[in-house]
Amino acid sequence: MLSAATRAVFFVSDSTGITAETLGNALLANFPAAHFDRHTIPFVGTVTPVSTVAAALQSATTPEAAPIVFATVKNAGIRAVIAGSAAVVIDLLAGHLTELEAELDTPAEQRSGQYHGLGDLERYFARMRAVEFAIEHDDGQSGRALDTADVIIVAPSRCGKTPTTMYLALHYGLLVANYPLTDDDFPTDGLPRIVAPHADRCFGLTTTALRLSQVRHERRPNSTYSSLAQCTLEIRRAEDLYRRTRVPFLSSATRSVEEMSAVILQSMKLRDRPHERPTP
Amino acid sequence: MLSAATRAVFFVSDSTGITAETLGNALLANFPAAHFDRHTIPFVGTVTPVSTVAAALQSATTPEAAPIVFATVKNAGIRAVIAGSAAVVIDLLAGHLTELEAELDTPAEQRSGQYHGLGDLERYFARMRAVEFAIEHDDGQSGRALDTADVIIVAPSRCGKTPTTMYLALHYGLLVANYPLTDDDFPTDGLPRIVAPHADRCFGLTTTALRLSQVRHERRPNSTYSSLAQCTLEIRRAEDLYRRTRVPFLSSATRSVEEMSAVILQSMKLRDRPHERPTP
Repeated sequence: MLSAATRAVFFVSDSTGITAETLGNALLANFPAAHFDRHTIPFVGTVTPVSTVAAALQSATTPEAAPIVFATVKNAGIRAVIAGSAAVVIDLLAGHLTELEAELDTPAEQRSGQYHGLGDLERYFARMRAVEFAIEHDDGQSGRALDTADVIIVAPSRCGKTPTTMYLALHYGLLVANYPLTDDDFPTDGLPRIVAPHADRCFGLTTTALRLSQVRHERRPNSTYSSLAQCTLEIRRAEDLYRRTRVPFLSSATRSVEEMSAVILQSMKLRDRPHERPTP
Repeated sequence: MLSAATRAVFFVSDSTGITAETLGNALLANFPAAHFDRHTIPFVGTVTPVSTVAAALQSATTPEAAPIVFATVKNAGIRAVIAGSAAVVIDLLAGHLTELEAELDTPAEQRSGQYHGLGDLERYFARMRAVEFAIEHDDGQSGRALDTADVIIVAPSRCGKTPTTMYLALHYGLLVANYPLTDDDFPTDGLPRIVAPHADRCFGLTTTALRLSQVRHERRPNSTYSSLAQCTLEIRRAEDLYRRTRVPFLSSATRSVEEMSAVILQSMKLRDRPHERPTP
């Protein structure tokens, strides 16, 4: 319908809207030339009145284009209101639920989606413990209980250790520590003393010297720390160390936190752990 | 087809598999009586050979039931391999992409999904800064740059401040501090001294005394800290404080970290901030 113009997009949910945002954005990413003006309307029918949705869709409808709605709504009344608007509705649940009902020979529950709901207390504890472990063990701050870590991420400063650690802790309830590789660690032939006994649980990050220099420059502009020469040296030493100690490693240069987390899960076989249940 | 038996489920993706896991699990949550044995196969066609998927689906196929596959795969060759197996395939992309192609009058990009890809460097910095800010300001550890916080979560110990803070930082790049309400804060009539000047950015958490006692018991069993009497007192004082200082608040008792985050985003209008772009 349009190319340069901006199209209004709504993620509408009777729950958090996280599923609608996740899949909706994944779908929109396939149309990089288009411009979208995104809005999320969560908790429709409870916190947010249904009339708010109707009004928002109405006011986003122009003579040129109707808004696009990515919907994860189970309630039939709310679905009818959305269907009654001018919006183009991409229903992310209904069709697939019908497929699953047929295959499982069971009707779907009628309550609204509870996937991002609380879950059991045990899982909540695991997740909370994991986030606290990650904070305690960020950037080598603590060696306490390092033997209980599921994985120890090692890397030079600014290769992405901290966000990757948090993502794995928050979403997978894994105990993740991270440890910086500083200049001091490189005169020796092995891993830093504190993590060396746990080499089998170490995973290394690297990046390109250029990228590292850009990222460090953001923190300390025009410093030795951010110089291309220093970054080149640290990256080469880190990669040598990983190879020498047989620590698997990965470059963060062209990867997001989600991609790095997915590779680490796979490479360290962490999906097989009992507390693996993903909570995206 | 089956009820008590366990059904094999695969989340298969040529990218991280996060979208397939998120929507797939949201759909499966509608069948609480069924048992599923979940497997994620990410990076198919790059890290993971296509033959691995074919073999995994083959070995999970029994005379009684075929596995269910939730697929987010763009590559036609890989899709053909999955379609050629005995599995029941729920395709989370293809149908919706066709709908979007028609509506936007543009063909979808042929590369595999990049939604969980790196994005621009600026967004990466925002996210990294947010996680570091959250770690620095966890549990009232620092008052530095508190005036730059997008939101300050206040609550008694163990109401869910830390995981909620991390979720908002990691997924929305927001600067989130959190501050504990301890017994010492309650003799006064106002918010704790450090956060009081920023009352308009405070958001309170509460829970039920019973739930708080359970959660605290996990940390320090049979202590005054975890006693029902102490929890009742702290919760009542915190809620009184929120009302008196007009700080919006929410109970974490029946809500997940995702749900609390979604309510806070909505209530504090944080979706309107320039750095809002969600990165689920």
